[in-house]
Amino acid sequence: MPPQRATLLQVAQRAGVSRSTASFVLTGRYKDMRISEDARQRVLRAAQELDYRPNLMARSLRTKVTKTVALISDTIASDQYAGRMIHGSLAAAVARGHLLFIGETEGDPVVEEKLISDFLDRQVDAFLYASMFTRPIRVPKQLRDRKVVLLNCLNRGSFPVIIPDELSAGRDAARTLLEAGHRTGIYLVGHVPDQVFAGRERLAGINEALGAAEARLAGTIDCDWWPGSAYDAVSRALADGLVPKALICLNDRVALGAYQALREAGVDIPGEVSVISFDDSELAAWLRPQLTSISLPHYELGWQAIETLLGDSTEPAVQRLPMPVRRRASIGPPRGE
Amino acid sequence: MPPQRATLLQVAQRAGVSRSTASFVLTGRYKDMRISEDARQRVLRAAQELDYRPNLMARSLRTKVTKTVALISDTIASDQYAGRMIHGSLAAAVARGHLLFIGETEGDPVVEEKLISDFLDRQVDAFLYASMFTRPIRVPKQLRDRKVVLLNCLNRGSFPVIIPDELSAGRDAARTLLEAGHRTGIYLVGHVPDQVFAGRERLAGINEALGAAEARLAGTIDCDWWPGSAYDAVSRALADGLVPKALICLNDRVALGAYQALREAGVDIPGEVSVISFDDSELAAWLRPQLTSISLPHYELGWQAIETLLGDSTEPAVQRLPMPVRRRASIGPPRGE
Repeated sequence: MPPQRATLLQVAQRAGVSRSTASFVLTGRYKDMRISEDARQRVLRAAQELDYRPNLMARSLRTKVTKTVALISDTIASDQYAGRMIHGSLAAAVARGHLLFIGETEGDPVVEEKLISDFLDRQVDAFLYASMFTRPIRVPKQLRDRKVVLLNCLNRGSFPVIIPDELSAGRDAARTLLEAGHRTGIYLVGHVPDQVFAGRERLAGINEALGAAEARLAGTIDCDWWPGSAYDAVSRALADGLVPKALICLNDRVALGAYQALREAGVDIPGEVSVISFDDSELAAWLRPQLTSISLPHYELGWQAIETLLGDSTEPAVQRLPMPVRRRASIGPPRGE
Repeated sequence: MPPQRATLLQVAQRAGVSRSTASFVLTGRYKDMRISEDARQRVLRAAQELDYRPNLMARSLRTKVTKTVALISDTIASDQYAGRMIHGSLAAAVARGHLLFIGETEGDPVVEEKLISDFLDRQVDAFLYASMFTRPIRVPKQLRDRKVVLLNCLNRGSFPVIIPDELSAGRDAARTLLEAGHRTGIYLVGHVPDQVFAGRERLAGINEALGAAEARLAGTIDCDWWPGSAYDAVSRALADGLVPKALICLNDRVALGAYQALREAGVDIPGEVSVISFDDSELAAWLRPQLTSISLPHYELGWQAIETLLGDSTEPAVQRLPMPVRRRASIGPPRGE
């Protein structure tokens, strides 16, 4: 049974002052009101002894300001990615003296509506609307007149948007191979459906950078973005006589499947085939040889979203955050050269 | 600039009724007060048109009941585990008509205190206090008189606790090998410091089950619970002439490193060495051969914690949830038999 809250009146009585005096002290207005230091100390001590908790909502109703931000997300963790995004947001919020509430909807519009309503009823007035993978979204009706920043999702409206720079990442993947001497036998591994932002942008960047060096992709080994599917597709391609010199895997899980297929076929990495990937998840450093992979800057996405939401930002409406190349040991010169 | 909230008075005016009538309708007391159906409908329509939002806190202050649970966690995502735990809690909360707020502290006691204070100030009155890996904790002072369930953490007090049954998991790991015919050459891979609950309990269960079959561990290949460390330790052991018949890896990441070492030494799994593991993370199904691993029931932990918190639970104070064995392809009979 929770203890009854101590009231302002009880604090005042314990301190031997009037209720209004206690109120002035506890709201920091004692200087204006010429309250003695002795009275002030008695009030503070009484409040502490009674574990007096000011009704935050009452104060908020007067000032209409809260120091809490809510992050609404479709899913908290498909893997560790979401966690890093939230860590970035949390760190930035704490650095600015705000708290972060997290609400997860699992994509359920009913839960989303209730969650947002509940946050609004609790006087939360700044929101991050987040998605675990970059995709277009519709901002919920309840948030349209509110202070909102879109974190890792896209919208045709005028809300500030923080996304990863997938186009540059694609260019960098291609350039890393070009710098190692590759020009031919470069295959994309994965699948690029039109609706997936990351895949589409990465492929556009790859094609652009290869084209600028008068090179091009030799083809695509089509598979889902999962190890089992990549293993099957690459195994089949190798068995059919394909002789790749480099593989651009659309994420580390695809690279894992590709590694397994190459290994089973007795093909050495990077001696015979170079492999580059995207995401730079934990898996990249665990594979042997360690995988060169292009980082998704989840922590920075989360951080920058809060900075944009709470700061006096003069940033452009759409901020594309850089995706650094994590160079490891999976790239070498083309075989036979 | 957020729109000003519509007030109860504005709703009443729009509906052409008194403020008190509007209040009775919107709090469901219209039957008591003999308000006409026509008046009721006008009030409801006015409230909808004005997007009237009752001050939830005002109502809560009268009833002292909220339908929101807060989950306080040290960290949201070391990997996908935390996500599954939260999914379980979320699903159970929604099934019971509650919302779930999540607050992450990253183990910072200052953030934790502020977060809890803020939740208490917002009339949240039921809490899950969670840890991402099973460990003893001290319940924060602010929560000691509140409704709290400990999720994946331990405490000497009287709070309900939901943890995984690591002791049984250890027994099951050993029994799975015994059933396949193993008695000798069984090595533990990992590290069991006294303070780590999972390691300690698993080892106790392993020793108990092997002992009951008059068998025992041949030794421990000591390493950190990470692939690189496991790879180094197992490689070294094999080079030193160790001939294991089975490896009990303390988690899937350790198993990955062990697989890499075995493969490099030309040792076949499961033909020459059987491997069993714990966690049943995504990695277990991605390895080749697919890894038999004992599942950490994160979703169920999260679900059961909410059920215990919100239900009329007659469960014991400490609930140990079963850890199912996910049988895959990494175990065979001992070599040479």
